[in-house]
Amino acid sequence: MTDSQLLSFVPVHPDSHFPIQNLPYGIFCHVRSCMPRVGVRIGDYVLDLAAVARAGLFDGPILSRQQAVFLQPQLNAFMALGRPAWQEARATIQALLRADNPTLRDNAALRRLALIDIRNVQMHLPAAIGDYTDFYSSREHAFNVGTMFRGPEKALLPNWRHLPVAYHGRASSVVLSGRDIHRPLGQTKADEAPAPSFGPSRSLDFELEMGFFIGPGNELGTAIAAAEADEHIFGLVLVNDWSARDIQKWEYQPLGPFLAKNFATSISPWVVTLAALAPFRCAGPAQAPEPLPYLRPGRDQAYDIQLEVALQSRQMSAPQVLCRSNFRYLYWNMAQQLAHHTVNGCNTRPGDLLASGTISGPTPDSYGSMLELTWRGTKPLTLASGETRTFLRDGDRVTMTGWCQGNGYRVGFGEVTGLVLPARSG
Amino acid sequence: MTDSQLLSFVPVHPDSHFPIQNLPYGIFCHVRSCMPRVGVRIGDYVLDLAAVARAGLFDGPILSRQQAVFLQPQLNAFMALGRPAWQEARATIQALLRADNPTLRDNAALRRLALIDIRNVQMHLPAAIGDYTDFYSSREHAFNVGTMFRGPEKALLPNWRHLPVAYHGRASSVVLSGRDIHRPLGQTKADEAPAPSFGPSRSLDFELEMGFFIGPGNELGTAIAAAEADEHIFGLVLVNDWSARDIQKWEYQPLGPFLAKNFATSISPWVVTLAALAPFRCAGPAQAPEPLPYLRPGRDQAYDIQLEVALQSRQMSAPQVLCRSNFRYLYWNMAQQLAHHTVNGCNTRPGDLLASGTISGPTPDSYGSMLELTWRGTKPLTLASGETRTFLRDGDRVTMTGWCQGNGYRVGFGEVTGLVLPARSG
Repeated sequence: MTDSQLLSFVPVHPDSHFPIQNLPYGIFCHVRSCMPRVGVRIGDYVLDLAAVARAGLFDGPILSRQQAVFLQPQLNAFMALGRPAWQEARATIQALLRADNPTLRDNAALRRLALIDIRNVQMHLPAAIGDYTDFYSSREHAFNVGTMFRGPEKALLPNWRHLPVAYHGRASSVVLSGRDIHRPLGQTKADEAPAPSFGPSRSLDFELEMGFFIGPGNELGTAIAAAEADEHIFGLVLVNDWSARDIQKWEYQPLGPFLAKNFATSISPWVVTLAALAPFRCAGPAQAPEPLPYLRPGRDQAYDIQLEVALQSRQMSAPQVLCRSNFRYLYWNMAQQLAHHTVNGCNTRPGDLLASGTISGPTPDSYGSMLELTWRGTKPLTLASGETRTFLRDGDRVTMTGWCQGNGYRVGFGEVTGLVLPARSG
Repeated sequence: MTDSQLLSFVPVHPDSHFPIQNLPYGIFCHVRSCMPRVGVRIGDYVLDLAAVARAGLFDGPILSRQQAVFLQPQLNAFMALGRPAWQEARATIQALLRADNPTLRDNAALRRLALIDIRNVQMHLPAAIGDYTDFYSSREHAFNVGTMFRGPEKALLPNWRHLPVAYHGRASSVVLSGRDIHRPLGQTKADEAPAPSFGPSRSLDFELEMGFFIGPGNELGTAIAAAEADEHIFGLVLVNDWSARDIQKWEYQPLGPFLAKNFATSISPWVVTLAALAPFRCAGPAQAPEPLPYLRPGRDQAYDIQLEVALQSRQMSAPQVLCRSNFRYLYWNMAQQLAHHTVNGCNTRPGDLLASGTISGPTPDSYGSMLELTWRGTKPLTLASGETRTFLRDGDRVTMTGWCQGNGYRVGFGEVTGLVLPARSG
């Protein structure tokens, strides 16, 4: 049976992001009795893995002794179990949801317990994130930003083609899609001003990113080889790395972005596994010069994931797509990112989040930030409402989505969305 | 009674860092039965607060209902309770240890349970650190490093006197004093080399820092005012921010240090509270230009803490002091750091660690890193053994210590120590 023939007894629209080929994990609770636990999305339902576990249906050699991981309010314990356990879980869940399997399909009592209408569900952060790292892995993004600030000849700094540049972000302010974001206050300084001033950011931006969660991870003093990275990548989410460009410009020398980024980072609620993405694995961009040996995974490590960013202002009745990009455009892939991150012995832990950096493509309509789309504000965008934008205004809603297009089905990420609220009074 | 007259029935040497005036908190277990819990250091003993709680001796209005915080394997829950609870705990513990209080002094059974010889104790990390932030708050350090890389005219970047520059560090690799550190592997590039190479760092360094732990903290979207910072500062530890200068030089543009720092950060085990440090509060350096209003705490926020760094090579029979500095030299104080960190709405959580950055003083023997002490390797240090050092060699042990000198007593931090191990085979 091919992926496209795989069917569930749960009805799934062909445009849905969540067919039986996907089966992403998330943390949910019923709106009426909030006990966060592990669920899997299928169509417009959530399969409650705590209920599945209580029914004794995780009967494989690993999970039959580890069912408590599905009763946790975070995915960390399940992530820590590693790939054999993830494979076992996927096999069990996919079998249970198949159209030709009567176990759940014909058990009305169990279905009522275990399949919950998405309209009755509240989502939570999928993991307790110990550390959050943000890369800078799109050549197009790095080139665009470098060109604006240093000119095209010096756009890419000398290290950029040799290593996946990254910095540590803030774990505490990673929030779930749907949480609205206050415009940050901070210090900024106009070029011509004699001194900085304090107030709301005037160049609030989004960054279209994706991030992956660490599975077992590595002990301090050890490294994860690029060829072993898949054993430690649990799955991916959409990431909006909200950024205040004016705060960043004034603060970032010499130690990098800090308050310009750490006021909020939004992620989508459903973690799409590498197993679900396997049919969409593909070659990434050619890398020249050839990376050092520790940065050679030995196989294709890109994924063909279509990405979109849409904006809806208060005056608009529908969102308008501003950017269409693709995860496969990234120059540095996840295996290289993880190998680089740990090559010095830095430890990673289950639930750590590693994000890609802004994913810009080759054409102007594929740039993943307002900074690039409006070329530092010099080319304002005109919205369907007739309004113009250089950066985000209060009341703007930014929604990112992403999916892999299969033959007759989609493996998708749902969305990450957030509304810009006015700055709090200082 | 003045501080200098306060005496405990537990014998404490006048040079001890841990008299009854100090009473720092840590997480310990007995070497024979490892159940990590909260303890307080007094002389060469640990007062087991779990035992004190079980004996019903926390009888104040807050802690009588919160005794479970002392049974935890981290201080986070106690940190979260806030300053009124900390004050109540300190009053109870100080009273219990006083020479004129018979409660514990004359109860042999309770003493045997609650006072544990430090030789039978194993220490653990004091807190689960959610986020670790590292500042760059010593003017002397920033000036020295800036001078080496850009010359004295451009040493301090334009933002430096307006805001406490900082970056996010790695929480997972914060380790306890005594843990040995493998020399990190990584990419470096000599100025004249056409391409980077891979191997063990050749310029491994220490950085003399101090860090403070967050108490209650703040919700996302809110800020902590500088004048309120003391409500959120639980206490301080010594920090050695191990750094690989050659890795840093190649990687840090444009997003700041990453692998050069995240392989290990060592901290001392005993958290010295603001209450214990209160007698040593003093004025910090004059700040010009005057900081923006949100960076004005309204009272003295520096502390007179003497600091030393010692090195002992394999060939040396005793450590040799390389640096004598003082926490009061810091230009930006903790209240300013915390106000700045949260002014954009970034949330902080109990157990978060905020470190100072290298604490260098005005004279060459007060510089807090090998980078500065040897002026980028151009002025090697000669050790008592006759060996020379530019940066650290395998087998070198780095030990930092710090204390406040009272009248007849010291409020000290003990030490943070670590041995440099060879790089692991790549």
